[in-house]
Amino acid sequence: MRMTEPTTRILLTGGTGFIGGHLLRAMTTAGWHVSLLVRRTSDRAPSDAQHIYDGTHDSIRRSIESCRPDCVVHLASLFLSEHMPQDLGPLIDTNIALGLQLLEAMTGAGVKRLVTAATSWQHFHGAAYEPMNLYAATKQAFEDLARYYVHARGLAAWHLRLYDTLGADDTRRKLFWLLNDARRRNTSLKMSPGEQRLNLLHVDDAAAGFVHAVRQALAASAGEWLYALRHPENWTLRQIVGEYQSCMDGLPHVEWGARPYRDREVMMPSATPDTLPGWQATIGVREAITQLAQAQRAADGGQ
Amino acid sequence: MRMTEPTTRILLTGGTGFIGGHLLRAMTTAGWHVSLLVRRTSDRAPSDAQHIYDGTHDSIRRSIESCRPDCVVHLASLFLSEHMPQDLGPLIDTNIALGLQLLEAMTGAGVKRLVTAATSWQHFHGAAYEPMNLYAATKQAFEDLARYYVHARGLAAWHLRLYDTLGADDTRRKLFWLLNDARRRNTSLKMSPGEQRLNLLHVDDAAAGFVHAVRQALAASAGEWLYALRHPENWTLRQIVGEYQSCMDGLPHVEWGARPYRDREVMMPSATPDTLPGWQATIGVREAITQLAQAQRAADGGQ
Repeated sequence: MRMTEPTTRILLTGGTGFIGGHLLRAMTTAGWHVSLLVRRTSDRAPSDAQHIYDGTHDSIRRSIESCRPDCVVHLASLFLSEHMPQDLGPLIDTNIALGLQLLEAMTGAGVKRLVTAATSWQHFHGAAYEPMNLYAATKQAFEDLARYYVHARGLAAWHLRLYDTLGADDTRRKLFWLLNDARRRNTSLKMSPGEQRLNLLHVDDAAAGFVHAVRQALAASAGEWLYALRHPENWTLRQIVGEYQSCMDGLPHVEWGARPYRDREVMMPSATPDTLPGWQATIGVREAITQLAQAQRAADGGQ
Repeated sequence: MRMTEPTTRILLTGGTGFIGGHLLRAMTTAGWHVSLLVRRTSDRAPSDAQHIYDGTHDSIRRSIESCRPDCVVHLASLFLSEHMPQDLGPLIDTNIALGLQLLEAMTGAGVKRLVTAATSWQHFHGAAYEPMNLYAATKQAFEDLARYYVHARGLAAWHLRLYDTLGADDTRRKLFWLLNDARRRNTSLKMSPGEQRLNLLHVDDAAAGFVHAVRQALAASAGEWLYALRHPENWTLRQIVGEYQSCMDGLPHVEWGARPYRDREVMMPSATPDTLPGWQATIGVREAITQLAQAQRAADGGQ
């Protein structure tokens, strides 16, 4: 009788989000057993494969002890491109405290592999560390807390940098939501001059990157790795919108230059750090935009 | 009629602690107007020169707006050489959240000079950043957040690294407290082999270093500076205890090697970063120990 290969067990935070949902499917497809750690406020009911984080260390410790993961994938994040004073507490709670509780509980239980999602905005102007916004700074703060666990408790930490992601089922109120909204309402959209370049990665490529990083982490000993999940091409905002319009009969109308660039606008995506070795984007920017536009069109009839 | 030179105004956190108390006197001696920001749990009553931090952003904003400091000196800290899971929340609250609220409130009110106290333990093994313990990691996390304010809001931040400090009125339960306690109870003290080197700085030299850094900060524009307040000599623990014993008729008896070195013991204080330019220690290690021992002896009669 042959022994059955033991199933890889993953604890995933942020699994109810856009990227997290795609990653959950990708990891399940890989044959892994994935448990989710969700906040108490999440609208899903707890189950065998779903554990509740109520802000306490005990709730995380129980999750870790119950699902005994081989690797923790930490995607949960509060994203704010700009912040107000009242956001400081929530930014610390979600982007620093939750992760620190995870680190303490997992290493305390002998779970020593971690893959996290962070942002290219930690590398404003291509720096080793310069935060574009406070969100990026909270991500760096978490990684510097994680370094203690790398050195003192043998953690293997893989920190991945994300740029912009997109996909057909993306409902986040970002660029393509705005374009679709203006198109459907037949209004024009005021934008900056549009010469800033963006790095657009299809969400399934991003999910494949996380799966690849988990495989690396499973084989790693203590240490810290920092890599980017990026597409080889950076398109200008004008090129991206032009491609979208070409799928949408030229809509929506965009008033280029009607707004100034933002304070601290990223004009060129950071080339730091290196792209994750052994992984690459497989879906072209044009293909990803076309797919998304078609999905938006298909949804027109239903609303 | 000559105009009166406007008084330099300082907001000080951690002013009720050992170093903070000495720094408060040093800054007052320099002719500066010093207001304290203290926690609600502090046993001092609020006053004109004392503002209360109750955990909210509003309480800090009010303090800043009321005292309109030229520079904030941020010493408040929760120090733990080792931590337990239940310490995570308090470590984040004191070492990260309080500082972040300060950064947001001060820069929002146009106050752009900051001097902070951090620890040589952020430079374990002499690294640019490797935290000896989680306390050191929380200090680094705060500095990561501060960098956002340096780049986005024009903050001038001076981060100073402290090693070990001592002084005649030091009541912290550290080395000299333990030695005094064993001496008075006439018991022996079990210690490690004692070959680790320490950097001992008299608290008045430390306070002078902060005053010097404040003067630099007052003349600085946006940027980040990282310097150490260290004594030029590193003494082994055996040398330090020997010097103390020589002031105390050979007491207490120490059993060298009766304990192992701690996990992650610092054997040699970090030579990173550079010592604060324009400042230097003026009180010798021998003199500092002698002064402290004499003060302990003087207190014998009163107890």
